[in-house]
Parts: sequence; C-alpha cells; structure tokens
Amino acid sequence: MTSSKPLVIFMPSGRRARVEPGVSLLEAARGMGVEIESICAGRLTCGKCKVRIEEGVFPKHGLTSSNDHLTPASQAERELLAKMGDADCRLACSAYVQGDVLVFVPEESRAHKQIIRKSATERVIEVKPAVREVYVEVDKARLGEHRGDWGRLQDALAEEWGLTDLRIDLPALRKLQPALRQGDHKLTVVLWQDREVIDLHPGYHEGAYGLAVDVGSTTVAAYLCDLRTGELLATESMMNPQVVYGEDLMSRISYAMMHADGVEKMHKAIIEAMNKLTARVAKTAGVARRNIYEAVIVGNTTMMHLFLGLDPRELGGAPFALANRDGMDIKARDLGLRFHAGANVHILPAEAGHVGADNVGVLLAETPHLHDEISLIVDVGTNAEIVLGNRERLFSASSPTGPAFEGAQITHGMRAAAGAIERVRIDPVTKTPRFKVIGEERWSDEWPDDPDEGAEFQPKQLAAGICGSGVIEAVAEMFLAGIIRPDGRFEPDLKSERVVWDGVRPAYVLATANQTATREPILVTQEDVRNIQLAKAALYAGAKLLMNRAGVNEVERIVLAGAFGSYIDPKHAMILGLIPDCELDRVYAVGNAAGDGARIALLNRDKRIEAQRIVERIRYIETAVDPEFQEEFVAAIHIPHASDSFPHLAHILPDPPKPSRSRNGKNRKRRKNRQIANHGG
Amino acid sequence: MTSSKPLVIFMPSGRRARVEPGVSLLEAARGMGVEIESICAGRLTCGKCKVRIEEGVFPKHGLTSSNDHLTPASQAERELLAKMGDADCRLACSAYVQGDVLVFVPEESRAHKQIIRKSATERVIEVKPAVREVYVEVDKARLGEHRGDWGRLQDALAEEWGLTDLRIDLPALRKLQPALRQGDHKLTVVLWQDREVIDLHPGYHEGAYGLAVDVGSTTVAAYLCDLRTGELLATESMMNPQVVYGEDLMSRISYAMMHADGVEKMHKAIIEAMNKLTARVAKTAGVARRNIYEAVIVGNTTMMHLFLGLDPRELGGAPFALANRDGMDIKARDLGLRFHAGANVHILPAEAGHVGADNVGVLLAETPHLHDEISLIVDVGTNAEIVLGNRERLFSASSPTGPAFEGAQITHGMRAAAGAIERVRIDPVTKTPRFKVIGEERWSDEWPDDPDEGAEFQPKQLAAGICGSGVIEAVAEMFLAGIIRPDGRFEPDLKSERVVWDGVRPAYVLATANQTATREPILVTQEDVRNIQLAKAALYAGAKLLMNRAGVNEVERIVLAGAFGSYIDPKHAMILGLIPDCELDRVYAVGNAAGDGARIALLNRDKRIEAQRIVERIRYIETAVDPEFQEEFVAAIHIPHASDSFPHLAHILPDPPKPSRSRNGKNRKRRKNRQIANHGG
Repeated sequence: MTSSKPLVIFMPSGRRARVEPGVSLLEAARGMGVEIESICAGRLTCGKCKVRIEEGVFPKHGLTSSNDHLTPASQAERELLAKMGDADCRLACSAYVQGDVLVFVPEESRAHKQIIRKSATERVIEVKPAVREVYVEVDKARLGEHRGDWGRLQDALAEEWGLTDLRIDLPALRKLQPALRQGDHKLTVVLWQDREVIDLHPGYHEGAYGLAVDVGSTTVAAYLCDLRTGELLATESMMNPQVVYGEDLMSRISYAMMHADGVEKMHKAIIEAMNKLTARVAKTAGVARRNIYEAVIVGNTTMMHLFLGLDPRELGGAPFALANRDGMDIKARDLGLRFHAGANVHILPAEAGHVGADNVGVLLAETPHLHDEISLIVDVGTNAEIVLGNRERLFSASSPTGPAFEGAQITHGMRAAAGAIERVRIDPVTKTPRFKVIGEERWSDEWPDDPDEGAEFQPKQLAAGICGSGVIEAVAEMFLAGIIRPDGRFEPDLKSERVVWDGVRPAYVLATANQTATREPILVTQEDVRNIQLAKAALYAGAKLLMNRAGVNEVERIVLAGAFGSYIDPKHAMILGLIPDCELDRVYAVGNAAGDGARIALLNRDKRIEAQRIVERIRYIETAVDPEFQEEFVAAIHIPHASDSFPHLAHILPDPPKPSRSRNGKNRKRRKNRQIANHGG
Repeated sequence: MTSSKPLVIFMPSGRRARVEPGVSLLEAARGMGVEIESICAGRLTCGKCKVRIEEGVFPKHGLTSSNDHLTPASQAERELLAKMGDADCRLACSAYVQGDVLVFVPEESRAHKQIIRKSATERVIEVKPAVREVYVEVDKARLGEHRGDWGRLQDALAEEWGLTDLRIDLPALRKLQPALRQGDHKLTVVLWQDREVIDLHPGYHEGAYGLAVDVGSTTVAAYLCDLRTGELLATESMMNPQVVYGEDLMSRISYAMMHADGVEKMHKAIIEAMNKLTARVAKTAGVARRNIYEAVIVGNTTMMHLFLGLDPRELGGAPFALANRDGMDIKARDLGLRFHAGANVHILPAEAGHVGADNVGVLLAETPHLHDEISLIVDVGTNAEIVLGNRERLFSASSPTGPAFEGAQITHGMRAAAGAIERVRIDPVTKTPRFKVIGEERWSDEWPDDPDEGAEFQPKQLAAGICGSGVIEAVAEMFLAGIIRPDGRFEPDLKSERVVWDGVRPAYVLATANQTATREPILVTQEDVRNIQLAKAALYAGAKLLMNRAGVNEVERIVLAGAFGSYIDPKHAMILGLIPDCELDRVYAVGNAAGDGARIALLNRDKRIEAQRIVERIRYIETAVDPEFQEEFVAAIHIPHASDSFPHLAHILPDPPKPSRSRNGKNRKRRKNRQIANHGG
C-alpha cells in the first residue's frame, strides 16, 4: 500500500486535490477554491456546510469513496443533522479526511448562491452582498488583559474570519457588552463591506435583509431580499407622493424653485413614503424592519436629488449640473429612514444630466458592456433614456419624447388602466379595426353587436380611451392599412366610413359609440398621429445619433425597459419607426430593469464597482444642442423613416423602403429630409 | 557674470537653496521644507503668506538681497497688503524670484504655529489640526462635461491641494450647489482629516473652531480653540449634572444597574450639559456654534461610557471590561451634540479598567514617553491614576485612595471652598498651629485675638473645616511636631492643651472655637489621621508597585495632576509619604493636564496616533489583586514610610529614616511590614 495522501473530489464542480490527512472537508474545499457556505466557522451551530458523501467505486474519478474515509460524526454533529432532516449528510466543518472521498455539495451549501432574473436573456447573479453575518466566539474579559470587549471581538474576527481594520458603529457598540454576556461570549456579527460592524446578536442568528428601491416619478417600487440566499421575499409599490407637487420632473423642479421649503417638503414626502413602503414590504415578508441592513436606491437624477434632500434646480436648465454623479453610501438614519439603526443606503451613480441611477440599474441588469453584440436599450417615458453599445464602447443619451406615449396629448389618450385600448388591428381592405381593452379578455370583434344580448355576453369593460401601447399600434396599423401616408397625413383619396372629416381635420374612428363607456366614439385624429410622430421621431433620432457616434449601421439587440416597454408590441414599434430595424425576435421587453439593477447591486457588492466603471466609461451625448440630432429628428418623423431601411419588415411594409442610407448619400438625404419636414410640419 | 541660479534664504530657519528663476517664493519655500501658511493657494485672497524681504548686502549669507530681485507686486497684491497694514511686505505666492533674496518669514506666516502650554515644563505644540479650511476655484459646469459639481470640486481639490480619495458628508453636499453659484464657483472647503468634506462656504471664509472637553465626575470643563492659530479663545466649566444620580463613579454605575433607563438618563444629562457648555463657551468667544467642527473628549472610563451611551456596569467589578479601549471618531450628530452638522467627535483611547482617556490626556501633556528621565505622574482623586516610566517603558495603575483627600471621611473635612483650612504650620516646640483658610489672606496667627476689635481687622472668612490639602499639611506637621508618631498614633506621653482626649481617642485642636464659623473647635482626630494614612498608603503603594515593576529605586520627576494636585504642597506630601522621595524642585503641580491633553489632541492630529501608541505600549498593573501591592500598602501606612528612605527630606524629618531598601533585605522588611501592619490595623 502506498502512503499517498487522500484524494478529495468535490462535485458538481469536479475540483480535486490530494490533501493532508486530518484536514476538514471545509478546509479542503477552501484550499481548492470550492466555496461552501459557513456562518458559524465550524462551531456546529449553523449547519450551512452540509455535504453528501457519494459511496462506492468510481473508476472514472479513480477512487473508492466511503463515509468511513472520514472521521465519524460526533454526537453534536449527528444531532444537528437530524434536526435539519439531513441524517445522511455530513457537516464539512466537522468531517476530517482520512481517505479518498467524492463529495457532493448540494446547491444550498454552495457559498455564493445564484438566482435567476426574469429577463430578456435569463441572467444569473452571484450573491455577494455588502452585508453578511458571521458567528464568532470571543475571549472572555479577564484581569490583566485590557483590550476591551471591542478589542477582543476584533481579535476574534481577525482570527476566525481574517477580518481586519474594522470599525464599529455606535449603536452596535452599545449592544456589544450585553450581547456578549447574554450569549455567553458567542455572537453573530453583522458586517457591512467587511469594514464596519453594524449590528450584533447574542449567540447564533440568521436573518439579514436588504431593500432595493426604484424611485420613479410616478411609482416607487421596493423589493425585499434575503441577503444570504438572494431570495426575493416581497415586492410592493406605491404612488410617489411627490406627484401632488408636480406630475412630471420639470414641474417638481419648478416647485423647488418657487417655494423656499419645496425641496424639504418633497424630500420628506419621499422619505415618509419609503418608510411606509418598507413597513408594508417587511410585513408581507414577515421580516422585522430592524433586520433590514441595507438598501440600494435607483431613480432618475431629479428623484435622487430629492431623495437626498438636494435642490434639483440645476437640472432645470442647461448645463444640467448634477450635485453628485458618483455612487454613495449614507447611513439610513441620516436620511430618516427607519431600517436598522446602523443600516446603510447605497446610491447607484448617475450618468449625466437626466440619465440617472435608474438607467445605470438597467445597464447592470442588461449588461451591454459585457457583450460583443451591439445592444440598443431604450427606457421609454416622458424622457427616453437610450443606451447603445457593447463591451468596447457605450453611448447614452436622453431624448425628449414628451408625454404622448403615456397617453397625454392624445385626444382620447389615457393611462394604461381598465378600459384603455391596448391592442389594435385594422383590416387593410375594409379599414375596419378590432381592438382589445384592459379588463376584457375578448377582442372587440367578438363582442356582441346587439346591446340587448344577455349581460353574460357583454364585455366586462367597454373602451374608455387609448393608452400608449394602443396608440402606437393604432397609428402603425393605420399606416399599414393605407389610412395614413408615410408622412403621417391622412390619405386624402380614401373613402371609408371609418374616416371622418371635421372640415380639413380628419380622424379615424377606432371605437364606435356603442363600444365605449361614454357612448361617444373614440377617435385617432390627425393631431394625435402628429404627436405620436414627434414622440417616436425624438426616440428614433436619439438612437440614430448614438448609432452614428458609434459608427454602426445596425443593432443586434433591442431592449425595451420600463413598464411601458413591456406593453409595446415590438413589431408595431418598428413599423411605426420608434426603434431602428432589428431582427424581431431580438427585441425584448424586460419590464422594470432599473429595479432589477438595484436588486443586483444589493445582492452583489462588486456590481457597485461595475456601475461606477460603466458611468466613467459611457459617453453621454447631449441631444438638446446637437445639430445632427435635429436632422435625424426631422428624418424620423416619417413612418417608419424618410430614408432608413427596415429589411426585417420587408414582408410587412406596404411600400419598399428607400435604399439603405450610405455615407455618400448623406447630403442628398438630408436635403430630402428637409423637404419632408416642410411638408410634414 | 555667471549664470548661476538665484539663491533664496529663508529666515529664521536659515534654509537656503538655489532655485529656478521665475518660481514663486511660496513654491521655493515648499521645495525647501519651509512651511508658509496659505489658505487661498495663491489667489491673492487670504494674505496669510506675507513675508518681508531683507534689503542689503549680507556677507555672512553670501548674497545681496533686494526687493528688486523679485517680480514687482501687482495692483491686487499691493492693495491686499495695504489693507492688511503690511505695505512693506510681499505675498510669497505672488512674488517670483529673479535674483538672490533673503526672506524673513514672520511668526504669523509660519504654517504650523505654536502655542505655549502652562505646564510643569513649558510645552510647545505644533498646530496641525484634523480640521482645516482650504480655498478653491471650481470649474463651472458646461454642456458635454458630466462629472457633477462634487466631481468638479474633487478635481479642483486634487489639482490645487493634492487631496484625493475624498468623501463628502451629506449636509455639505446639500450646500454645495447653492454655495458654488453664490460664490461664483469660489469656495472655502472645510476638511476633516483630509478625507472628508464636512462643510463649505461660498467665497473666502476663515473661522474653524474646535472644542476640547474634560468630562470629570464632578466638573465638566470645555476649552474653545481656533483651529488655525491654536489660540485658546474661551474656557468654561460646569457641574456634571450626573451628580444627582450618584456622587462618585461607583454610585453612578449602581444607578445604571438598578434603573432600566439609568444609562439613557445619565447619557442625556451629559449631552445636554455639553450642549449648554458649548453654547456658553461659544458666546464668550463670540463664535457661532455652527463653526465648531470638531471636539476631542477625555474623561475617566465610566464618564466616557456614559458619554457614548454605553452601559458602564462591567466597570463595577472585576475584570473591569471596557466596551472599547480604542480612540474613536463619531459624528457629533449621532450623539445629539449641537456643533456643525458635519462635525466629528474624537474620543481619546483609554488604558484599562479605570484608567481612562483623561489619563491618556495627562500623558499627552506631560510626555513621559518622550524623555529619558523617570517620571512619576499622579492624578489624585477618589481613584488615583499613577503612571511611571520614560521613553523606554511605561507602567500605569489605578489605586483606591478613597475620598479622604477630597475631605470626605475626615471629621471636619470639607471641599476646597470658602472657609476651608488649606495650609497648616505647627510650632514643634509649643505645638501651636497657624493656618490659612480659603477666602482670607492672612494666616490665623495674624487674626486679632479680640473678637471685639474693629470689624475691618476681623478675618473675612472664619474657618469652617479642613480641605484635602489642609489635612495633608496638618497630619505632616503633626508628625514633624512630634504630636503623632511614625505609625500614626498620637504620642501618648505628650502633654499639650492642643491635644484633647475623649477617653482613649485623642484629637488635635487645629482651630479653636473663636477661630471658627460654628464656634466649635476644628479637630484632627486619631481616626482622621488613620484615614489619611490609608489613603496616602494606597497612593504610595501604587507608585511603589510600578517602581518595582520598572526596576527603579528612585524617580527623577514627580507630576501632580488634577485640580487637587495643584493645591498640595510637595514638601508636605513627601513628609507624609504620599509620594516617594524626589528632589523637591522636581515635583510639579500641573493643574488640569487631562484638559490640556484634550486640547493638544484637538490641535494636533498626530497626537491622536501618539495616544493610541501610548495605550498599546503602556503596561497596566492591576493593583486590586496584586499581593505585592498589599505588602507595599502596609509598609506605606507608616509616616513617611516603614522602610523607604527620603534623603531629600533628611534636613527636615525628625528621625533618620531606616536604611534604604535593598533586594537582599526584602524578606526581612516584608516581615517587618507585617508586624507593623498588625500594630497599625
């Protein structure tokens, strides 16, 4: 028999090494870079490091593995495993290697768990939070030894966890001595960034939670997560109470400028809202607020200014100076937030002007900077934030789309609420529309014609107006059906009962009087079409400006972020010319990616550094003053576009689009665009 | 003519170098390590860098110096100098070298000013505070440049002052944008530890103040300083309001243990007191509280626990575990202290158990660790803190002297207030005393015998009791006059009208009935003598224990710290055997050295590091459990001592003391000590 050292293989990673007899499986794993979770550092308290020994002969791995190749489990280990219902497992901290073993590390024992984000492309997040709990046993005070209890705790943390240069927050220091005595000098310490002790509990404790918050102008959404497992425990949202001071950003900025206490009022309103939301989300998850140890906040720049109590007036006009662009850590108590007394709030950085931490959140979630393919990411709102790029270069811009996509400035526009028309199809021959309203499952052509038919057949919800996604589809379908021309004007030669003329102002009857709640028809007017053209042109021009700067002719992936983006049908958005040409199945709606990004930064502290790097790398293009933007804007007023081609829509579009734009043809096209602008103005 | 570079010499340091023509005097000075103050970094705003050019031929220095060897002063420089009344000076930042110059740097222009501490030996303190103001001009925001105002300020601070890795406190960030616009992008920035921006002012601003506070069990003393000049602007003190919860440390610790809200109440009381004291000291100095940017706090360990809101119960019994021994920085707002919103509080470290930050303050002021001579430093109170050592080694101890020195446990004892007998002399032949009371200038033997004599001749203040210094002198003089024997017992054979016997309990009549306010005589009883013996023995034994540990037979310097120490007459203290033998003129009373130490740490941030090093170096000896302490205590009950010699008192003491203790004679002496103990018990 040879005296070679025992061979240990960890599955599923397959990492293998020969180790000194007598080392614990936990030590062996660490030596091989296999991360096994452990909170109590081998004190037989947490049970997090359980593993299963595969028994038998494994020729492929070249070993015979047996539980007998480990030291037998102690009474304490057997009891803990039995209590956990894992009697067939071992605790890696307490099983010492004496011969060859093949060890299976179950998912829940792997130190850095992974969660799946619902996303365009499913994303895996390594859980590596800024806040973690560690268990230590601290030397007792004795005469002739004078370090103080905090000194002794520091020594224990250095020895057992390799943590040095720690500081302790005052509320934690106040708990230290009672906790030590209560827990017989065993403590669970809550650490922030491995730099600061922010809380401690007597004995063994499990339960550190974090909050990701997306502060939108209209809605504030909060996500409560378990910081150890990464699990999303509860989501709640509420109206941003600042809306009483102004519906949109500019009116809130005005409010701050016009009222001496305006900033203070709006700041207090959002802090109060966040406290309420925290209470609600904690209650839903059955978590104590005092166990919330960190929050990551994203929002547009105005929201972030107000959240921090900073006057946003400089964002009201050029040069749009931010008070601060960088990521920041602030004690929650300094903001009046009622989490744990020692909790910190991390603010993601902003990019520039009106492209804020929420957009950085979107980028953390969508990671265009980590891929070769050129992504175009669009977050549609009153301002659209647009990012274009890949791992080599990144550009961003903000484009003033105005509120048309939110249903404002549209004759029968409304928010995406019950009764809103959200889907539209128009028969190209008869010009007859069918539509779907929020709150009724059937399309309108399945509704009974006869209002006297049984109530059970009547739609649950009649049409009340058109929301953003509905108006996009309506205008796109009107274009496909030949009701409007590429320049947006109603086809003057079209005879249809669906087109009504009020003098020279035409309109399309989308819903007839008996399909609506008001018993008045719902129309899409020439002016509505014009407003949608202007909004989509601003967005398209922003995207195009970035493509020009990046020197790319096409994008390989389009991401529609934000709640609104989820409802847009990519095909209709492209037919309208809201987004440039792209393979249709490479256009994704990803929902609240900003909130996802906040959650990612909450669960993985490295992502905060990544966020800062993104901000430092990204080139922000100021659309407002760029002459090229004006030119692109004018060209983009056309449906889908005055000159750009949409090869992926070739089978759908009524007229073959003009030849693809080339460098040489630029001036010619510009002239053309100007002519169109004159027609279309 | 040679092309050698111009020679620049700075006086009074005499530093010299040849420099490139065209460099400013300020740059030249920095290159040579000559520190010239400058706040505005050459903006012709602060005028702090004024220098005088010595005109004439200086053969000793080997140059001809002339104002013409500098570029002429600009209009702006001339105006600023005229406004300052220094028309004959130049500003070093604006005078560029073109030829040889001899430059005199006036005291007020030297960057690190020095202040003199009233002390045993006068001490010079380099002013190098943690808080400083710097003036910067920040780039204006412009389109296409997106760092944010804080980013631009960081760039300006890096470029003009070499400051990097700065963070900004939230209250300062909130002021940033308005201050920039108000000050036309010129700012004065208040920095803490060159790490954090804690405040800012539009334009040029001067005025950063700091507070040093000594939190005593009885008295809280505050010192307000100008952080730029080091000047002490005002001193105020008040009663520690915690006295209502207990006179001494142990009763306050008991209060904390007996009442659930005890810690909270005492914490709030001291914070409120400190806020009141701050308001008073600021008013006296004419300084706004919002311009107080830092405080350094010292106090005994119980006071520091309560100041921080920490439960002091662990200090109530062995092993006397401190919550924290280290120095700490805490935001003043987290303690409820009303300084500037961004101000920090620095806590000096403690040594151990009951030897706290106040003693560390004493060491910073007295610097035994920087000298070769062996110092013994004694801070007398209910507990005496004792430090012994020099640059090579340091020992400390706390000795339970009890309250006798404060006039408690003395039949006619009282605090050092009006009417207290503070000085005593006894005629060795007649045994008649004379004394001095607080509030009356004349010694008692000059008081008229006849109470009917004119009121203008009567003492302003009759005797009301004996204070600590008085009782020390009384007992020492009684010993010198042969009224009591070395073992403290009254001489049984002495016949004197001044010694009265109440059965077997003798007493000495220090003041007769007609010398006292109560018309009752003031006595020093056998029990009083015994209590003073126990107190002084505890102190001496502590000092002796440290001398034994240090292996030294004599000390070269004795420092009596604390208010009480100021009133003790060194000779009588030594006759009594309160302190070991030493040259009498090497015994110093230094007053509130703890407060001085706090002030030193406030004015010089390096001293905080020094304090931490002291604490890590000093060896704390636990007297309470040391058998050797008990032995030394017993031997020290004798007046002046059972075995130690006092060669410096040879001409005064009645009996030649026993031969100096030697290593060989130790056991013999110990036996002897035990016998004495049996007698004296």
